[in-house]
Amino acid sequence: MGAEGSSGPVAILAGSGEFPLLLADRLAAAGRETRILAFRGFASRAVRARADASVGLLDAKGTLSWLERCGPDCVTLAGGLRRPDPGALLDAYSALRSRAELRAILARGDDNLLRAAIGLLEERGFRLVGLTDLAPELLAPAGALGTRVPDEASLGSVRIGMELLRKLSSFDVGQAAVLAGDRVLAIEGPEGTDRMLARARALRRRGFLRRPERGGVLVKAPKEGQDLRVDLPAIGPRTMVNAARAGLSGVAVASGLSVVLDRAETVRMADRLGLFLFGAAGRGT
Amino acid sequence: MGAEGSSGPVAILAGSGEFPLLLADRLAAAGRETRILAFRGFASRAVRARADASVGLLDAKGTLSWLERCGPDCVTLAGGLRRPDPGALLDAYSALRSRAELRAILARGDDNLLRAAIGLLEERGFRLVGLTDLAPELLAPAGALGTRVPDEASLGSVRIGMELLRKLSSFDVGQAAVLAGDRVLAIEGPEGTDRMLARARALRRRGFLRRPERGGVLVKAPKEGQDLRVDLPAIGPRTMVNAARAGLSGVAVASGLSVVLDRAETVRMADRLGLFLFGAAGRGT
Repeated sequence: MGAEGSSGPVAILAGSGEFPLLLADRLAAAGRETRILAFRGFASRAVRARADASVGLLDAKGTLSWLERCGPDCVTLAGGLRRPDPGALLDAYSALRSRAELRAILARGDDNLLRAAIGLLEERGFRLVGLTDLAPELLAPAGALGTRVPDEASLGSVRIGMELLRKLSSFDVGQAAVLAGDRVLAIEGPEGTDRMLARARALRRRGFLRRPERGGVLVKAPKEGQDLRVDLPAIGPRTMVNAARAGLSGVAVASGLSVVLDRAETVRMADRLGLFLFGAAGRGT
Repeated sequence: MGAEGSSGPVAILAGSGEFPLLLADRLAAAGRETRILAFRGFASRAVRARADASVGLLDAKGTLSWLERCGPDCVTLAGGLRRPDPGALLDAYSALRSRAELRAILARGDDNLLRAAIGLLEERGFRLVGLTDLAPELLAPAGALGTRVPDEASLGSVRIGMELLRKLSSFDVGQAAVLAGDRVLAIEGPEGTDRMLARARALRRRGFLRRPERGGVLVKAPKEGQDLRVDLPAIGPRTMVNAARAGLSGVAVASGLSVVLDRAETVRMADRLGLFLFGAAGRGT
């Protein structure tokens, strides 16, 4: 069972957002054949409309039998699979694994769930690949992406933010933070980046910030030691809008380790809103 | 100027909450003479009613001249001085320090502001003391304070939470987090513990949690290397109410390094709400 061999399509397991289509288009442009499996409850209407098939919310059985019919060269996870409800994995995997093992997995966090899902695919002989292999051009490059460039103070905040996220790597917590000067305004939890930015905005509105903190930076980076084939931090046009609403000066992501959804539009939005968008040197990995 | 010598009253510089009165009562019961200076904008009506004097929002000039008249044996900071608006320090200190120096301080965080305030008092010859010296009985003891005892899973969350806060010590960020199982649901920013608990409550309501995460723990501890004379993490009856609303199983604080405001009432509330209240072994300090 499973699929071996070097021909066959790229199977895209599609979660939320428009990224699965972006990736499919990119792969098609590069002459690769693709198949899309949409996860209902995660995949958007547009993704479902273009998908070759769809299965219930992370239905592991359905996924595996679709993959076996599809016979892909490799499999990739695209789009959000953590939210809205990673707990939905429970129902899917309970058919496949012992309840005791499941309970042990579920007592742990999102990271462990994703690791379990990957393990299951690989056990069945599928080759899981990430963007680094498939479409590295979708990853954030180093340096300024738009016209704005971060000033020294912002670069200081970026450095502290990257160090903070690195120290948080061993904990099951978000991959983003908002800093102003040396101060950490918010660390992302399961609520996601947009809600965290709303929190930073509320802090500003309620007057929690001091004058030199008018600016501020959103910093995103994957955990150290994370499996880079899944769940890379992503930003897009909406991130720019929410960062601007929170009064930030810009956004920094780990270069080569973060996805920029629709780069042209994201950069245009950053420029229009007066934000810098910066690929910070990847960590020494 | 300043006050030397071993007699004289204990000068209590009173911030927000009822803790300044609790401390004054405790010191009076122990036969110590006290004087209270209330910071307007922070100190409650009850505190201001009993204060010997009050000054504007962290008015450094007024504070120093009051202290010089008062001639205290020692000075202590009691009650919240970080919130509602630590930025108010700006106006107070701008009269005393150069604007360039101020700007440098303000570009840094709350921790640095408090350090600057302490430095100023000590420069003027006042002896600043903390609860460890004045009233160690107000600090959380080790072990369970109420009738409930944390189970193994909760103790696991407490251990992870303490380790998380330790790793965050070098960053200017909150002193509290909420965990469920291995997962970090929220890390406290400038918004404070009550708002962070409201966030954990919202995550639960929106279905972000999995079944084994029904419980959860609020963990509070000071930063490693923090000046323990100021701004120790504090809990009180309201913390218990908000923790229960967030669906948590209990609250853990660093024993000997955290203040329990109104212990009798806090423990009664924890017992009534079915929460454990636990003093976790202080860090190896």
